[in-house]
Order: sequence, then C-alpha cells, then structure tokens
Amino acid sequence: MADRFRIASDSFGPIEVPIERYWGAQTARSRAYFAIGDNAMPIEIIRALALIKCAAAEVNCDMGLLAPALADAIAAAARDVESGLHDEEFPLRVWQTGSGTQTNMNVNEVIANLANERLGGVRGAHDPVHPNDHVNLGQSSNDCFPTAMHIAAVLALRDRFAPALGALEQALQSKSEAFASIVKIGRTHLQDATPLTLGQEFSAYAAQLGYGRERVEATLPGLYRLAQGGTAVGTGLNTKRGFAEAVAARIAALTGLPFVTAPNKFEALAAHDAFIFTHGALNTIAASLFKIASDIRLAGSGPRCGLGELILPENEPGSSIMPGKVNPTQAEALTMVCARIFGNETTIAFAGSQGHFELNVFKPVIAFCFLESLRLLSDAMESFRRYCVEGLEPNLERIGAMVEQSLMLVTALAPKIGYDNAARIAKAAHANGSTLRAEAVASGLVREEEFDALVRPGAMLSPHD
Amino acid sequence: MADRFRIASDSFGPIEVPIERYWGAQTARSRAYFAIGDNAMPIEIIRALALIKCAAAEVNCDMGLLAPALADAIAAAARDVESGLHDEEFPLRVWQTGSGTQTNMNVNEVIANLANERLGGVRGAHDPVHPNDHVNLGQSSNDCFPTAMHIAAVLALRDRFAPALGALEQALQSKSEAFASIVKIGRTHLQDATPLTLGQEFSAYAAQLGYGRERVEATLPGLYRLAQGGTAVGTGLNTKRGFAEAVAARIAALTGLPFVTAPNKFEALAAHDAFIFTHGALNTIAASLFKIASDIRLAGSGPRCGLGELILPENEPGSSIMPGKVNPTQAEALTMVCARIFGNETTIAFAGSQGHFELNVFKPVIAFCFLESLRLLSDAMESFRRYCVEGLEPNLERIGAMVEQSLMLVTALAPKIGYDNAARIAKAAHANGSTLRAEAVASGLVREEEFDALVRPGAMLSPHD
Amino acid sequence: MADRFRIASDSFGPIEVPIERYWGAQTARSRAYFAIGDNAMPIEIIRALALIKCAAAEVNCDMGLLAPALADAIAAAARDVESGLHDEEFPLRVWQTGSGTQTNMNVNEVIANLANERLGGVRGAHDPVHPNDHVNLGQSSNDCFPTAMHIAAVLALRDRFAPALGALEQALQSKSEAFASIVKIGRTHLQDATPLTLGQEFSAYAAQLGYGRERVEATLPGLYRLAQGGTAVGTGLNTKRGFAEAVAARIAALTGLPFVTAPNKFEALAAHDAFIFTHGALNTIAASLFKIASDIRLAGSGPRCGLGELILPENEPGSSIMPGKVNPTQAEALTMVCARIFGNETTIAFAGSQGHFELNVFKPVIAFCFLESLRLLSDAMESFRRYCVEGLEPNLERIGAMVEQSLMLVTALAPKIGYDNAARIAKAAHANGSTLRAEAVASGLVREEEFDALVRPGAMLSPHD
Amino acid sequence: MADRFRIASDSFGPIEVPIERYWGAQTARSRAYFAIGDNAMPIEIIRALALIKCAAAEVNCDMGLLAPALADAIAAAARDVESGLHDEEFPLRVWQTGSGTQTNMNVNEVIANLANERLGGVRGAHDPVHPNDHVNLGQSSNDCFPTAMHIAAVLALRDRFAPALGALEQALQSKSEAFASIVKIGRTHLQDATPLTLGQEFSAYAAQLGYGRERVEATLPGLYRLAQGGTAVGTGLNTKRGFAEAVAARIAALTGLPFVTAPNKFEALAAHDAFIFTHGALNTIAASLFKIASDIRLAGSGPRCGLGELILPENEPGSSIMPGKVNPTQAEALTMVCARIFGNETTIAFAGSQGHFELNVFKPVIAFCFLESLRLLSDAMESFRRYCVEGLEPNLERIGAMVEQSLMLVTALAPKIGYDNAARIAKAAHANGSTLRAEAVASGLVREEEFDALVRPGAMLSPHD
Repeated sequence: MADRFRIASDSFGPIEVPIERYWGAQTARSRAYFAIGDNAMPIEIIRALALIKCAAAEVNCDMGLLAPALADAIAAAARDVESGLHDEEFPLRVWQTGSGTQTNMNVNEVIANLANERLGGVRGAHDPVHPNDHVNLGQSSNDCFPTAMHIAAVLALRDRFAPALGALEQALQSKSEAFASIVKIGRTHLQDATPLTLGQEFSAYAAQLGYGRERVEATLPGLYRLAQGGTAVGTGLNTKRGFAEAVAARIAALTGLPFVTAPNKFEALAAHDAFIFTHGALNTIAASLFKIASDIRLAGSGPRCGLGELILPENEPGSSIMPGKVNPTQAEALTMVCARIFGNETTIAFAGSQGHFELNVFKPVIAFCFLESLRLLSDAMESFRRYCVEGLEPNLERIGAMVEQSLMLVTALAPKIGYDNAARIAKAAHANGSTLRAEAVASGLVREEEFDALVRPGAMLSPHD
Repeated sequence: MADRFRIASDSFGPIEVPIERYWGAQTARSRAYFAIGDNAMPIEIIRALALIKCAAAEVNCDMGLLAPALADAIAAAARDVESGLHDEEFPLRVWQTGSGTQTNMNVNEVIANLANERLGGVRGAHDPVHPNDHVNLGQSSNDCFPTAMHIAAVLALRDRFAPALGALEQALQSKSEAFASIVKIGRTHLQDATPLTLGQEFSAYAAQLGYGRERVEATLPGLYRLAQGGTAVGTGLNTKRGFAEAVAARIAALTGLPFVTAPNKFEALAAHDAFIFTHGALNTIAASLFKIASDIRLAGSGPRCGLGELILPENEPGSSIMPGKVNPTQAEALTMVCARIFGNETTIAFAGSQGHFELNVFKPVIAFCFLESLRLLSDAMESFRRYCVEGLEPNLERIGAMVEQSLMLVTALAPKIGYDNAARIAKAAHANGSTLRAEAVASGLVREEEFDALVRPGAMLSPHD
Repeated sequence: MADRFRIASDSFGPIEVPIERYWGAQTARSRAYFAIGDNAMPIEIIRALALIKCAAAEVNCDMGLLAPALADAIAAAARDVESGLHDEEFPLRVWQTGSGTQTNMNVNEVIANLANERLGGVRGAHDPVHPNDHVNLGQSSNDCFPTAMHIAAVLALRDRFAPALGALEQALQSKSEAFASIVKIGRTHLQDATPLTLGQEFSAYAAQLGYGRERVEATLPGLYRLAQGGTAVGTGLNTKRGFAEAVAARIAALTGLPFVTAPNKFEALAAHDAFIFTHGALNTIAASLFKIASDIRLAGSGPRCGLGELILPENEPGSSIMPGKVNPTQAEALTMVCARIFGNETTIAFAGSQGHFELNVFKPVIAFCFLESLRLLSDAMESFRRYCVEGLEPNLERIGAMVEQSLMLVTALAPKIGYDNAARIAKAAHANGSTLRAEAVASGLVREEEFDALVRPGAMLSPHD
Repeated sequence: MADRFRIASDSFGPIEVPIERYWGAQTARSRAYFAIGDNAMPIEIIRALALIKCAAAEVNCDMGLLAPALADAIAAAARDVESGLHDEEFPLRVWQTGSGTQTNMNVNEVIANLANERLGGVRGAHDPVHPNDHVNLGQSSNDCFPTAMHIAAVLALRDRFAPALGALEQALQSKSEAFASIVKIGRTHLQDATPLTLGQEFSAYAAQLGYGRERVEATLPGLYRLAQGGTAVGTGLNTKRGFAEAVAARIAALTGLPFVTAPNKFEALAAHDAFIFTHGALNTIAASLFKIASDIRLAGSGPRCGLGELILPENEPGSSIMPGKVNPTQAEALTMVCARIFGNETTIAFAGSQGHFELNVFKPVIAFCFLESLRLLSDAMESFRRYCVEGLEPNLERIGAMVEQSLMLVTALAPKIGYDNAARIAKAAHANGSTLRAEAVASGLVREEEFDALVRPGAMLSPHD
C-alpha cells in the first residue's frame, strides 16, 4: 500500500499523496522539501490548531459566513483531530517554514478531507469543503499558528507542568516538616557554618518551587492573549468585525481557560515575547531544581567517603564494573534536563528577537523548544519526586556527629566576647585539633558553664528573644 | 603620598593600608588577592550596603543593643557613604569571594573609621566602633549582600530603567499616532503582504514595550523580599527577634519602596531566583528592542537602494572612506546592547543554579551582570529614543509607490473568487510583470469596477462589517 | 503478546521483561524509573557501543581472557546490533543516569542474550555469556560510554556532516563563479555603499563555509582520543596492560578513522571538553549559515517592495490566506536550526563544566545535543542547498538599476578631490534628489569627462594599479 | 579648563571640543550621541588601530602615495599612541556604531592633530595632515576596525593569556607529580568508587589545560588573517594593488606574529567567525576551569564536616559573622569568571550571526566581550594559581582513612568471583556496617589471604600485567 498514491493539487499544481492519507498537496510538498531531522511538529500544536478550526467554523456559521452543513462537518472533523484520532496524519517537521504555514495547511487539508467524506465527498476533491476557503475561512497561518502555540502552551502548563511542580513542592514541604527537629551543620561556601535543621534546609527547596509556581502564574496574561483574528498581517483583513472576539470566547469556553483576543494583533503576529517571558520563569525553575538536586546529591554522597547526611533510595545497580554501587541517578537525570532548559532559553530568546516587520518566522522552533521544556521538566520533576525525594531518609548518626564537632558554633560566643576573640578561639581549635570548649575555657574569656550555656546547636536555630 | 601607609589589622594579623584611606585590613587583603580584571563592585551595591548599615544601627539602637552615640555615628557615616561622598573608598573587584564578604567588610571598615573619627577616635583603631561588633551587629555578609543586591536592583529599576522604558514606549506610541493614516505595504517573511498603516506597525512596538513594563512589574515581588535578618545561614542566629522585620521596614521607609522581610531566609541566602526571573523580563525586553531596532534599521535602509520607507535622523558621518554616508548607528548601539543582555541571561541563570546548601556564592557576578543589563538597557533606550525614534520621518512618496504595486492586494479578492483563482491572478501578474487589475479583469472573474471596489489598500486595514 | 513477560534479574533482584525482548533487568529498571520525555538514546550511540563490544571481545580473546567461543558469539551479536538489526531493543531515554550506565547495560544485556542464543543458551540465563563478566569484560560504563560518544560523533561528522557542508560550500562557490560579472550595489550598515560583484558577495559565503570545514577538522584530535581502557575511574583497574591500546587500534581498523587511546584516561572520563570545542566549531558554522541565509532572504525580498536582487526558487504556496505568495522557506528552516544550535552550545558548555572528581555525569545530554546539532545542520544544509541555493537566479534588471543610482559611487572621487568635497557632493545629490554627476560637475571640482572616467562601478571592484 | 572649548568641524559642520584634547569633531559627536554605560572602547583596540595607522603610513609612503614628511609625522604620532602616551584621548564607548567608525575616526583625528603639531601645524586644522585623506589613506573603518580586533586579540592571547594558562597548567602538573604516591578514594557520581592517586586526579586537570592550550592554538589561523586592504566593502577600492599584502607584512614585522592578508576580504568584513571559534576554545577552557575549581573547592570542604582531602591556603577572614571561618575564595572568583565567559559565548555567537551583506555591525561588542574574556580568564588563572593551587596541601590522615573503608575496593574481587557475587558482598558490608573483608570471608568465596592479596588500594591504580 505504501506505493499507492492519489494525485492531490494546490496552486502549484499536482503532486502524489499516499492513497490512504487525508493530507493534501501542501503537506506533500513540505514532506519533500523539509526532510530535516526527525522532530515532528508537536502533536499539541496540531490538536490546538484543530480546536481553532472547530471554534472558527462555529463562529463563521453563527456569523452567516459558512453554511451550517459545512460548519458542522468541519467542526466534527476538527473535534476528531483534536481528540487524537488522526495523529498519524501530521507528518511534517518542526524545521519548515517559519510561520508554520505548512502545518496549518496540513490541518486544513486533513479536516477538509475528513469533512468531505462525512458529507459524502471524495478525498482530495476540495469539495464541498475547501481547505482554504472553508476550513481556513477568516484565518491565516499567521494568526492560527501563534494562537495554537498559546493554547498548547497553556494546556501543557495547566495539565502537566503545574501538577508536577505542585506535587514536588508538596513532597519537599512534607520532608521539611518530617525533618523539622533534626539539627545539622550548616554549610556556606561548602565550608562548615552555624547549624540549622534539616527541615529548614528543605524549607528553602519548597520555597523555591512555591515561588516558581507563582512566577509562572505571573507570566500567564501574555499567553492568554490570542492572535486569532489578525489574519495575514494583524489588520484582520477578510474577517468580519467581532470574529476575533467570538473565536477567543469560544476557545475559552472549550478549554475552560481565560483566553482573550489580543488587544494588539500586530504585536501578536510579529513578536512572541510572551514565550520568552514564560520560558524565563521555566528557566528560573530549572535553576532552582538544579540547586535542589545538587544539594541532595551532595548530601547523599558516600556511602562512606562523602557527606552522607541523606540516604537516597536505591533504584538500580549503579555501575557495570563496580559491584554494589548505587548512584543518585534521579538527580542526574533532572540536572541534565535543566541543562537542556538553559539551552532552550538561549534558543527561544534568540528566535524571539529575529522577527521582521509584520511576522516572526521562528514560530515552530519557539513552540517546539517551549513545549519540550515543559514536557521534560514535568516528567523529570515527577520522576525525581517519586523515585528520589519521597524516599529520602536522614542519616541521623552522621548528621549528629558532624554538628557536634563544628568550629563554627563559636559564632554563638561572639556577642559575648567579640568577633576577634572568638576568631582566636576557633583558629586555636583548628590548629590544635582540639575542641572549641577546651580552647574557649583556656582563653580565660568564658567559664565552662558559660560555654555550655551559650554554645548549644539546638539553641542556634532562630533569633533570640 | 601613595607610598605612605598605616598598619591595619584583622583576625589574620597586620597589613599595610594607604594612610589616607578609610578602609581596613580585610579590604587590603582582598585588593592583594583579587587583582582580576578592572570591574569594580558596582557603586550601587556599596550605597545599598550603606543604607543597610544605617537602618541596622537605628534598629539596633531601638532594641537597646547599640549605644545611641555609636548608633548615631554609624548612621551618620553610613548616610555619607550612601550619598556618594566616599565612593573612592571602595576599590574591590567584582571577582572576589562569592558571598561579597570582602565588600561587606570594606563597607564595615570604612563606616567604622568614619564613625570613629566623628567620635574623636583614630582611623584604624576599631574603637569605639568596631567594624564587626558594631557596624555589622546582627548581620552577616550572607544576609547583607543579597539585601543590598535587592535594594540596588529595585532602585535602578525605579529610577533609571522604568523612566527610560516608559519614555521610549511613549515615543513609539506618539509615532504610532502620528503615522496613523499612512497606508503602507505589509511584509511577512520579508515578502510583500497585505497593507497596514505605518501607525499600526508602530503600535506593535509600543505594545511590546508596554507589555515589557508590565512584565518587569510582575517580577518585583521577589525583589522586594529582603534576606536581612537571616545572618549566617538563614536562622537569624545572633539577632534579636523582630530585627529582620524592623530593618526591612526601615529600608522601606528610607527608599519609599514596599520592601518586606523574606518569609524564608534560607531561600533568600541560598538562591537568587528572583534575579533570574527579573532578568528574564529584561531579556524579553531586549528581544523586543532587537526586533524594533532591526525593523527601523531595515525600513530606513537606502537611501536609494534599500526599502527607504523611513528617514532616520542623521547624527554623524557614517564612514571614514565613503563621503556622505549616514548609518543607523543608534539601532546598532541598541542591538549590540541587546546581544550583551542575552549573554547576561546565560550568565545569571548559570550562576543562579550553582548554589550549595545554605549559600549561593555567585552573588557578585549576578549583581554585576544584572545591574549592567539595567544600566545598558536604560542608557541605550534613552539614546535610541532621543537620537533616533523621535526624529523618524516617513518617506511618503516611497511608501505610497510600494503599496500600490503590491501583488498581495489580491487577497481582497479571495472571499469573492476563491483562494485558487486569486492565486492564479497574482501569479500571472508576477510572471507577466503586469498589474493585478489587468490580470483580474482578463481572467473574467471580476469586472473592472468590482476590482476597483474590492482592491483598495485603504479599505484593507481592519475587519469588515 | 504485550502482556507476556519473563523474569529477568540483576543484583537488585527479579523484574518483569517483555518476553520477546532481548534486554534484561537493568534495562527494565531504567524504563520504569526514567519515563522522562520521549527522546530515546540516539541510535548512533547504541551502534557505537556495539562496535566497542565487538572490539573488546576480540581483544579479550587475543589476550586469553575470554574463550574464543564466547568471544565469537559476542562479536557476532555485537555486529548484528551495530548493523542496525536490533534497533528496537534499545528503548531507554536520554534522561537517565548521567554516566549512561543503563544504556551500556542495555547493550550488554541484549548482546549477552543474542550471544547465548547463538550458543544454544536461553534468553535471560546470563549463561554461558554474562552481560557484565563477559560482554563488559575489562570495561566500565565510565569508559565505554564516552568512547561511544566519540565514535558516534566522528562517524556522523564524516558520513553526514562533512558531505553536506562540502556540497553547500561548493554550491555557493559555483554561484560565485556564475555571478562573477554581475556588478551590484554594496551594502554596509544595510545602507548603500560602494559596488562589488554578486560573485564577490557569494565568495564570502563560500569562504565562510570553507573556513568552517577547516575549523571542524582542527578540533578532531580531541575526538579521536578514546577513553576505553580507563574503566571505572581512569586507572584501568581490571584491564590487562595493552588492552586500551589494542581496543583503540581495533576501533580504528573497524571504522577507518585515526582513533587512538587517550593519553590521560582520567581526563577522558571526567571531562568532555572535546565536545565543547567541536561544538564551538559547529556553533561558528551556525553563525555563518545564519548570516548567509539572512542575506539570501533579504536579497530575495519582494517581489515588488523589497530588495529583489535575487529570485529564489518557488517550492510551495507561501500563505493560507494570501494567494500567490511565495516565501523564503528554506532560509527560514535553516535559521531556525541555527537557533537550536545556539541553544545546544549553551547546554553543552554548561553540562561539560559540571563534572565532579573522576566523572562527568552529563554524558547523555552532551551526546544527545551534539548529535542533534550534527543531524540538524547536515539535513538543513542539504535542504538549503538543493531547494534554495542551487536554484538562485539574479534579477539583473533590478541589480543594474540600483547600482547606477547609488550615491556611494562618490567614493571614487575622494582620492582626487578629498573626502570633505566628496561628502558635500553626495549630500547635495541626496538633498536635491539629483545625480552625483550633476552635483559633481556643478561643484566645479571635476569636469564631466573626469567624472565619467572616475566613477565607473565596473572599475570599483578591486585595488587599482 | 573643563569649560574651555575650541571649534572642530567635519562634514556635518562645527562642534565644540575641549581645548586641551587632540580629538576632533567626529569624536565629539559620538560622545554626545552615545552616552551608554561606562565601558570605554578597549584600549587594546586603540593601540592596535595606532599600529595599523603607522604601518599604513609607511606603506603609503613606500608606494609614493603619501609625502615622506607627512608619513613620518603620522607614523611617529601613531607610535606614541600605540605606546600608551595618549590613552586619555580615546573616550568613546563600546556602544556606538557597530562598525567602530567613530573609534577609527577618533584615532585618525588624534593622530592627525599630533602629527600636525609635530609639523608645526595647529590642532584642529586638518592641515597639512587630514584625518581622512592622510591618516586613513587607503583605509576604511570597515577594514581597519576588524584588523585592530585581530591584532588586539592575538597580542592579548600571546602576552597575557598564554603565559597565565601555561603557568597554571604547570602548577597543576607540579602538584600532580608531588601527589603521585598519595592513594585516595575515587569518586564517580560523587559516590565512592575505586581508588586512584591524588597525583592522577591532578594529572587530569593539567591535561585539560594542556589540551586547552592546543585548542586555542588550533584556532589562531583565522585570527592571523587581516581584513586590511578590503576598504569599504571588501573590494579594496581606493587602494593600490599590493597595499593589503604590504600592510599585513608590516604589521607582522611590528608584532613578530605571522599575520597575513585575508585571502577573502569580503568574508573578513562581513563575518567574524574567527572570534566565535576562538571564543569557543576559551569557552572550553572556562568549562575546564570550572570543573577544576569545583573539585578543589569540594575536596577542600570542611574543615571538619566536609570531604577535607585538601587543605587550601588561608588568605583572608571568610566571614563577617562567623569568627575563624576560611573559605575557598579563589575558586569562587574563578568560577564566577567562568560564568561570565559562558555569557560572552552567547553574546559573541549571537552578534557574529547578525551581519548583513558586506558588513557585520556588531564589531565593538564582539571585540569587547572577547577581550574581556581574555582579560578575566588570564587574571583569574593567575590569581587562582598563586593564591590557591600553589599552596594546596593534602590532608594525608583523612585521605588515608577514607580510602581504607571504601566498599568499592570490592571491584578488585570481581574478576575472581564474578560481578554478582562481588555485589552481594559489598551490599552486605553496606547493610551491616561491616568491612568488605569480613563479608567476603563470610561468603566463603575467598579466603582471608586471597582477600588481602587482591584488595590492595595501592595495587588498583593501573592495568595489571
């Protein structure tokens, strides 16, 4: 069957299409001319385009621009595509025209053919439903594609990213509470510092992700503004007044999200600043996650020659040559994902800066990298939570041994004897391999009972009254 | 005088200090050990640290922890530093310890010496005012330095960046209004497209910057949260309960800005996600500016062999060899600045991801790059506005000639005769070097008067009723 | 069949494996624990690992460490994997442990099972061939995986990237020769400048790519150095002296490439600087390609309202709404690819900087991004060459019209009348909309025949004698 | 004196210049129009331009194009500028026109005025030496500025960067040799692994930098190619045949470096790929340094609660609040510098990709970032070597204690008892908190004397015979 073709045609003439496929001539051309890499246009974009086609058909029908029979057929076909029934009909690559026009036409062609079959027509006939004149009615790739980018991004944020982020935040918060009474050595510059609790340490992780959540939310207004209705250059040529608003309202209703029509359609076609900004929030979260994963990896280093404060879940053999080795593999996967996100930040900002006049033609690469960041972060947070964070255990023995011997407990003496005297005591203990207590008493600046009263790790965890 | 020295000392022992300088031993050590590049720690950081020292002295006095005489002397000295009277006393480099400790001590030392002289003491005596025990009372570099970063950032945003951004946005908006009736060719993919007005084109620029303004504002909550009171590791050890809140309130009062104490001090020391996020907003604005400047450069290309739609102000000779040449130099300076900001985004996210446990020790490079981005963007927007945007003029003759000959006016026919027929007409005109009108009429699909009624650039600027 | 399983086991115990698969317990664990994204470990890495397993078996056999029957079975199985017969047996993701251990074990498991079946054994029995003790004999993931990275990278460079780069360079060179006599306006700052030929302009593009080719070659020594033989930490523990050298020689023979054993195995495991450097060369080529594609896009802008100097091949309809529109889609795809490469540069350098002690555990993300850059650049250069560059045609009429009217021809007068006088003439012509000739003669500084002798675009294309 | 001015003029008319300054009208204009940031054009660029002016004057004189008296005066003035006598005459910012034209004119103006004074003329008279007609004779900013970029870059590489890199490489190599017999625990994934010597660990650092040195050298051919002679667009218009070659030879002689004239001047003006590639090598070295500094920081963590294998020099008090604290400040400064270099990589590649037709107008930002990277890396490597690496000492007691207890010594048993048995022993020792020896003997798989013969850290450092 792979060698059986029908002839499809567009304004460039006829071209062969596999007989069983619903796509048409423009899709076929793009397949031929853009055999670059193997990254398919994200299916989230396809589905969002289908959702737009459905909304547009309904609005066009309401406005009297499209016959109800055609509108119904288009909407039904679009809903099928949107629900994933025809994912195999969208073979085009990310690396195509920078407006995503071929992907918009791919969707138009497939929906037109599906609709025509519903209406008793023949695949490829462009009749009664024409991909441009009916499915794309009142639309341009230049407004459809960015609209689809916004819809796909917000849906992925809501359905996948936010739950994963929230669950990880919550898991870290739970650990913070579980570890609330475990006093441990603090570390600044990776050097011994004054103590804190393990719960306090984890509270910072939870706080980072909580702020990250708020940050993403603060960026959403830009993503809620839809380009649809701007058509070719932002003027809305070939739309009827009210179309933009009605389509946005329909999309909002279909998704349950507060989408609105973009107040300035010229900006909505020519710039994708909203993606740069939201990705900046993702980039921030990647930096947070990198820090959190690095800390957990380092706190879990050992088992005998590292810091060894945390015991990480053992999920798989760690080495093909060293028997019995266990590694912080979840932290590694997560930090590799973060490295990818940092690269996507560079790509998206670069691509976003390169618009010319009425159009930015780096749309597919922006959409692809953005959705990739969302997907990878979502999955990696989920994996890290389930297979690392939730199973973390403190090594109480080791934590206790370390905090007791730290020289930085001397800080508690400084308010009484002054910074310079305290420094002398700490330095003496370091040089002599002795204890702070011995050196402090030997200095004559404090008596034993004073030292014992002042230098208590458990009393160094908060401001004093 | 350069070879006259006094002996200063700290917990490491004595060291020579230039006799006329107010700094002390730790500053001297850092100068010796960190002769890296010529980037001084930004003076905005120094002044913000002085502001903190003033606030802390006042709060410590109120809390009964610091004698009023000492507190007054410290506060007065700090105000002098904060007002810029002693800028030459802060010679340290950005490339020092990653906590900024030496800069905090530089400020402590200078203020202590200034205060001691006010109180009749001797420079370098550490008496009656001690740099650690009094100026730094209840503080650590680990909370002071990030607090200073936040203060310096928000002040630069308010006092320099926001006005420059607002003025450029306004200038572009004014041009948008002035150009509201100039119909021009639209360009998508850099190819001729349907028309719009020059005012509509500029409205996108103004919209980008307006959104940019809102984006920066949306990021501010993180910068308003101050680390002060966390001391060494975030616990607030060696502070009295209420100190953090009181200092934040005092700083808010002194600056007129809604600073608050950070709810989680561990996060505030160990992570600088707030800077990554706000810089993400600056990065977005840099992408906007790059697009705007590129468009204006390209629209102004010529004078005879380019697009030539805009006439740019002629500020200086453009070439050392080509007489009479004038270049879009303001656009060039601005786009070079944007390239720098894109690099700073990479640096800040990287640096922000590299904290360990209780401290991120990339504070100076984050502060430096962030303030550099603010400074360069502020100045470049100001320069671009004054010396380019405000003097822009349309080349009406050229704009008019181009819009009339565009083949994409055929789009207005598509609703009547269908996409495929319209494409045939445009292709014929392109191939024959003829007009759309001639080909349309020849096609038999429209009559002359229909064509003239439908294909009017001035009627293609908005949705129809 | 999807629900039928056998029980595989490793040092962690038993786990279910689909009955028809050759992989084992460790692969199964990694599938379960790393469901992150949908990026499979690049098949080039799998095949390179198989090639290593083949070479190692042969060398181990020669050294008397592995029975010939086992060695033969392993080598035969490895060759089958290397030739692509079992690609579906390698389901693991990029986002796994940072050493690639699970992928190395995936390969060990599959080859062991294949070899055991060849030897009459049972799938999953680990007998007579054990995945660790025999297939991985004398090896560690820590040396295998980076060795595979190097092999995969060099093969892709040789077989895919170099031909695509060379062909594009040659195509641009051919255009340079074909356009050698077409005199056109030069543009600096996008403003009119002195003339050159279209062939000279294209010679710069060819030169950029020629230098790019040399740059990549200059980076190859690092990629030729193989980690194999370093085993777990670089010491070569559990290998026999000579193993590293023999395996490298075998790999060189199998690939026909000058691979050598890395002189310092510690560096070879702990750092992947070679990838950062070679990717720097790819990054440079991406910058070259961005410039070339941007120029061609801009030179082809129009058809009526742009520069219009080049006529680009028309491959597909450019717009879903504007009939007859044609766009520079190949340039768009290529520049989007370049944006991705710029991001990969950020990712790879970041990942490369994050090694700790004896191992860098960002190996999969480095390999993935590097191979992605190679693939995308190779394909996009091929596409751009075939569907854009080779079909480029000059618009002679337009090119000729523009060069004649340029004011910058005045530069030819400067040596005779001085820069200041020449500038006055050009400015007068600009202000008056007149010709240089008219203004020059009116100035009294040159006579008509002098002007005509000096100001000839065709004589301004090279130094004079 | 600050308020005393003279009137200078250029083709734009008169403008005020401070009376004591040698610069002229174009410098004055650029000061007024580009008040952006405080980054002055790097003085290395100024001096390299002066060197070009000297070489050009000599060549022009030899070719009979410039009177010997003028040539001598220009060359003498240029040498004064090149030697640093007039650094204060070059006030312009980096953020100016993207061709560096105003800086080229600044140099032309200052040299012309200096030369005129030598010849008895008056400052500002443009007579007998004219900044364009004589100092800039046969030149354009478009070829001078990139030529200066190349000269400045290579000089900084040779005079500053290479010595600093070589010295650090040598210091690490010396430590490698000094530490050759210290057996320590290896760490992969930050987890305990098989042993190696501290010397082997440091050999990797030295190897990284040695390769880094070779990498930079491999990139130099591109920097040796000089644009000079291309003039405005690359054609060499207004030069005499042979000028380009003669100037390059003269520059080579003056610098002692193998500069040559660029074979393709169009490439040399329109692209700065050579900088992207060489900065890629710097970026690689930054990644190496980040890894090295991170390792040393981590190995030196403690003093009591970290890894504590290395004792770092104590240079200064580490904390304003924690008495006696010492921190790895040199590692921190170096890693902050690396973060800056990673950002410069982004900036330079971006800027390098943005050329249009005959000119890249991001020259100043490329030059600035490149020279900044060189300066910062040079200084930071020097500082890190002197104040950290050279003073490193091993903590022999701690190193010895850790290696003895590592469970990964079990790897030495695997060749005898198989991977799976060895894994069981290691897991048992881990679970029971016992020794490998006890568990191995208890397993019945090895006898005590076998264990002692096989499991010797000192015998696990290389392949076996």
